[in-house]
Amino acid sequence: MPQYKAPIRDMQFVMKELLDYPGHYRELPGDHDIDGDLIDAVMGSAAEFAEEVLAPINASGDAEGCKLKGGEVMVPEGFKKAYEIYCEGGWAGLAAEEEFGGQGLPASLSLPHAEMNGSANWSWSMYPGLTHGATATLEAHGTDEQKAAYLPPLVEGRWSGTMCLTESHCGSDLSQVQARAVPQDDGSYKITGSKIFISCGEHDLTENIVHIVLARLPDAPPGTKGISLFIVPKFLVLDDGSVGERNQVVCTSIEKKMGIHGSVTAVLAFEEATGFLVGPPNRGLNCMFTFINISRIGNAVQGVSTAESSLQGALAYARERKAMRSLTGPKNPDDPADPIIVHPDVRRMLLTQKAIAEGGRAMVFDAARIADYYTRGETEEARKKADKRLGLLTPILKGFLTEMGCEAADLGIQVFGGHGYIREMGMEQIYRDVRISTIYEGTTGIQSLDLLGRKIMLDRAKELDDFLGEIKTFCNGFGRFRGRMKVFTKPLRKMVRNWDWSTKKLMFRALKNRDVVGSAAYDYLMFTGFVVMGYYWARMAALALKRLEDETCEDKAFYKAKLQTAYFYFDRLFPRARMHLRCARGDVRSLTAMEEQHFHF
Amino acid sequence: MPQYKAPIRDMQFVMKELLDYPGHYRELPGDHDIDGDLIDAVMGSAAEFAEEVLAPINASGDAEGCKLKGGEVMVPEGFKKAYEIYCEGGWAGLAAEEEFGGQGLPASLSLPHAEMNGSANWSWSMYPGLTHGATATLEAHGTDEQKAAYLPPLVEGRWSGTMCLTESHCGSDLSQVQARAVPQDDGSYKITGSKIFISCGEHDLTENIVHIVLARLPDAPPGTKGISLFIVPKFLVLDDGSVGERNQVVCTSIEKKMGIHGSVTAVLAFEEATGFLVGPPNRGLNCMFTFINISRIGNAVQGVSTAESSLQGALAYARERKAMRSLTGPKNPDDPADPIIVHPDVRRMLLTQKAIAEGGRAMVFDAARIADYYTRGETEEARKKADKRLGLLTPILKGFLTEMGCEAADLGIQVFGGHGYIREMGMEQIYRDVRISTIYEGTTGIQSLDLLGRKIMLDRAKELDDFLGEIKTFCNGFGRFRGRMKVFTKPLRKMVRNWDWSTKKLMFRALKNRDVVGSAAYDYLMFTGFVVMGYYWARMAALALKRLEDETCEDKAFYKAKLQTAYFYFDRLFPRARMHLRCARGDVRSLTAMEEQHFHF
Repeated sequence: MPQYKAPIRDMQFVMKELLDYPGHYRELPGDHDIDGDLIDAVMGSAAEFAEEVLAPINASGDAEGCKLKGGEVMVPEGFKKAYEIYCEGGWAGLAAEEEFGGQGLPASLSLPHAEMNGSANWSWSMYPGLTHGATATLEAHGTDEQKAAYLPPLVEGRWSGTMCLTESHCGSDLSQVQARAVPQDDGSYKITGSKIFISCGEHDLTENIVHIVLARLPDAPPGTKGISLFIVPKFLVLDDGSVGERNQVVCTSIEKKMGIHGSVTAVLAFEEATGFLVGPPNRGLNCMFTFINISRIGNAVQGVSTAESSLQGALAYARERKAMRSLTGPKNPDDPADPIIVHPDVRRMLLTQKAIAEGGRAMVFDAARIADYYTRGETEEARKKADKRLGLLTPILKGFLTEMGCEAADLGIQVFGGHGYIREMGMEQIYRDVRISTIYEGTTGIQSLDLLGRKIMLDRAKELDDFLGEIKTFCNGFGRFRGRMKVFTKPLRKMVRNWDWSTKKLMFRALKNRDVVGSAAYDYLMFTGFVVMGYYWARMAALALKRLEDETCEDKAFYKAKLQTAYFYFDRLFPRARMHLRCARGDVRSLTAMEEQHFHF
Repeated sequence: MPQYKAPIRDMQFVMKELLDYPGHYRELPGDHDIDGDLIDAVMGSAAEFAEEVLAPINASGDAEGCKLKGGEVMVPEGFKKAYEIYCEGGWAGLAAEEEFGGQGLPASLSLPHAEMNGSANWSWSMYPGLTHGATATLEAHGTDEQKAAYLPPLVEGRWSGTMCLTESHCGSDLSQVQARAVPQDDGSYKITGSKIFISCGEHDLTENIVHIVLARLPDAPPGTKGISLFIVPKFLVLDDGSVGERNQVVCTSIEKKMGIHGSVTAVLAFEEATGFLVGPPNRGLNCMFTFINISRIGNAVQGVSTAESSLQGALAYARERKAMRSLTGPKNPDDPADPIIVHPDVRRMLLTQKAIAEGGRAMVFDAARIADYYTRGETEEARKKADKRLGLLTPILKGFLTEMGCEAADLGIQVFGGHGYIREMGMEQIYRDVRISTIYEGTTGIQSLDLLGRKIMLDRAKELDDFLGEIKTFCNGFGRFRGRMKVFTKPLRKMVRNWDWSTKKLMFRALKNRDVVGSAAYDYLMFTGFVVMGYYWARMAALALKRLEDETCEDKAFYKAKLQTAYFYFDRLFPRARMHLRCARGDVRSLTAMEEQHFHF
């Protein structure tokens, strides 16, 4: 069983050195006074919680799973206790508004916590994760009364939240939503319909669950422009804020899944359940999309969390397991064989995991930094600017990092050999748990269409041009490190040129054939992922080079390893960028020509 | 749940058209008289067995798993009945020697059966699969008495076999085997030691189990040159061939695994168990390696079986599930949305599965054709020639096709979206079951070292040169189809040149630094896989082109789809060859430079 240790040193590097979070917090409006020491303190207690509270109930939660009895769901042993500790620690309201009992801190500050919880126990971490979605919806679109009634217990963690979108016949295509909402004389609505795949849709962790539900008003236009958002609490809320009678929303079954067994996935039947409209009628999807970029950062974290936990497991095993001799001669002559970490192919797998974990961490933490401006920027312009950049980056982060998280988990099994396939080793749970990440909250295919179709083509690549300009400027810097940076900047610059040029070409081709978008989208997204991760690895390398020249630096081994990992990334992973680009620019007809009935004979 | 239908039409294409099995059987020594009709008949009854007997107990076998009680293992419900039907059908002895009750048919003829069984129920198919290994060992190395005692019941299927290699501290590195064999006065041995990961090591399918065990004689030299092979039957065999008293080999536990739940994985304790030496002392590994190429074809089949079953599941879903509109306008205007098969990205996933299944099938069936010459070739020269070619191809087939089988299963889940993650859909079982394939019988890393180190470098690339020459010759053919074949032959020829040249370069570099082999091996293997599969796709395309010009051809849709899939393969998958080659030729130091303690801070 991998023993999780929070990667504090690397998080410090990313937050304090690479991205200068302290400087960022000084720049943000509001007097947060968050310096490096506070960041360390937050990380320290987050690590303690993840390592000591969550990690020990990860495997047992997987084995036990959730149980449904008479409409009630029991979470696995220990999950409730962990949740209490979480609430007592004040984690639930870290980034929530102070008015409703939150600490009002920038959301980026909770990212170490999110990543660590995810590594230690992804299933558990989904419960608070879903609540954040509901909270954000109410903060942005709730009436004052709704906020007053629902936010304080959500922020406190006494209540939890869900997002009820999917129905059995529609997931990504929300235009097909059929749940109905009938207005009542008292201003409330009766919600009727069935929702599936509702993460944390029913459980015994909290005294109430606040469902945010997509449904149609009687006079709603068809399609996505006729969907409204409703609050449907599991227990109706009395005027004094306390919990009243049970609402007509029932958990009729829970899914048996490949992984994330500790996180319940519910089928919910709404039978004239009482609901309350949030935001304007028929604008439900727009309301939801206001925070979709931020919630997708949360999804991308799963890739990073997974790469980290899988690396830790594989690394421990590779140091301990002995098999064969190094081809360059015994490294461990007193033992019957060398530890497998001497073998280049094992190192290839470990370094791939490491490059994904650390590269992904830099990407995600930077996106969270930008997201702070989206939620708390001083001016409308600053908020818009952040929104544009996030809009471009989040499908890449969500799509690419979850795909790479799956690859990291796969390598974690492979390093273990046959032992990786055995339950008690814990590596196969990581593999099963992460597999959902490329699916929920929009599959990789959906992220790809969002990126190329909406975020780039509809924008006429304006935001992309800005972003690529930033990378080009970066590649031209470094003063006396210029020569040593070339190994990174030369391939990066080349791919940025290709990105630019190929995007224009695809846009042109798409004018004549709309299928160009769908045909290119997946490989285009993966291409951009490898380039963006390359950008962050080059930035980390530049910083490491500088530190290694600094004679007062006491931690040179860390920076040397950073530089070596950057070098590995460009040598062994970055070449995939070109391959994906080649496929993205492939012939549309190779996908569309075959008649549907000819796929199998 | 995917409904398995044996891909008869494509198998006919591969066996009768592409590889001319009837002609091949005429050429083989022995009067087999196997024509196209017999091939069809064998395929027909194999399909019936797989579809009607094995497929219905696949999901239930996964859910139920194997149970251990007092040293006895119960296989899942229905497995025993299926095994009886299998034995009654004469499948067990199809390729075994007639002298021992077999049908003496060429082994390649049982490949459709193997693939179909694997698609329908991989777990079940492992029981007969393991027996083949034990049978082959005894056929090749047993004494006449041993053959007479063990082969007839094995060939009949009344007894089954295992291979007991792995111990808890060693899998790939058999030099560390510790099990001991002490000679007894009666010529037998007492075997003591513990073996783990023994597939089908204990079960209630057969009345006896014949374990083939690796162990050391008291005077054995250390390392791989001191390992001998022993027969250790679960029940000792009486002189009349009947089953006598229980031997001292006990199943002490069975593994809880991620997948292949219906196939038991046993820990076996040998406590002075009675065993019998097979082959010369200390030559156990050599004896085992006599049929390792053939057994690796059996492993490669898992990639093909999986790609096929996953494709079938995903295709059915993609035709039925409706989401969004085709970007080029509604294809299904009467429904609220189009079936997802209209979306190019869904087609990309399906075509990837299809290209793997059909390309892999051609590769595996051709290897089985060559293997017929290894076991039944007229002359020593013919047998040696086949052995050399198989030696080159099988690590590629085993390594590459199992990796691609995992990818196909992954895409099968992705096409289903959230539903792919749910147990009852059956797609996640495919994904869990296939994950072991890149590990057992030598991980992909081990296959890679075998390919580049042993099969190519130790051979000074002689066999490789022959094989590449064959592809070059192929690329120069086609007469009037030459122009239309260029889209395939041009990239193929280029990669063959790269293969040739890069191999020489790697050999040269490896002279100075042995780590070059380990550093290049994985990507080199994947590179060769994409090129070899490209060769088979080009061959299939050439045949399809010819058929499409033939006015009497009544099945043009099939050949058109074949051509389209070849086109897809070269457009969207073949570009990975160059990427892997780029990585294989990467800097060794990017893997070896990092100090072991610097992989994590």
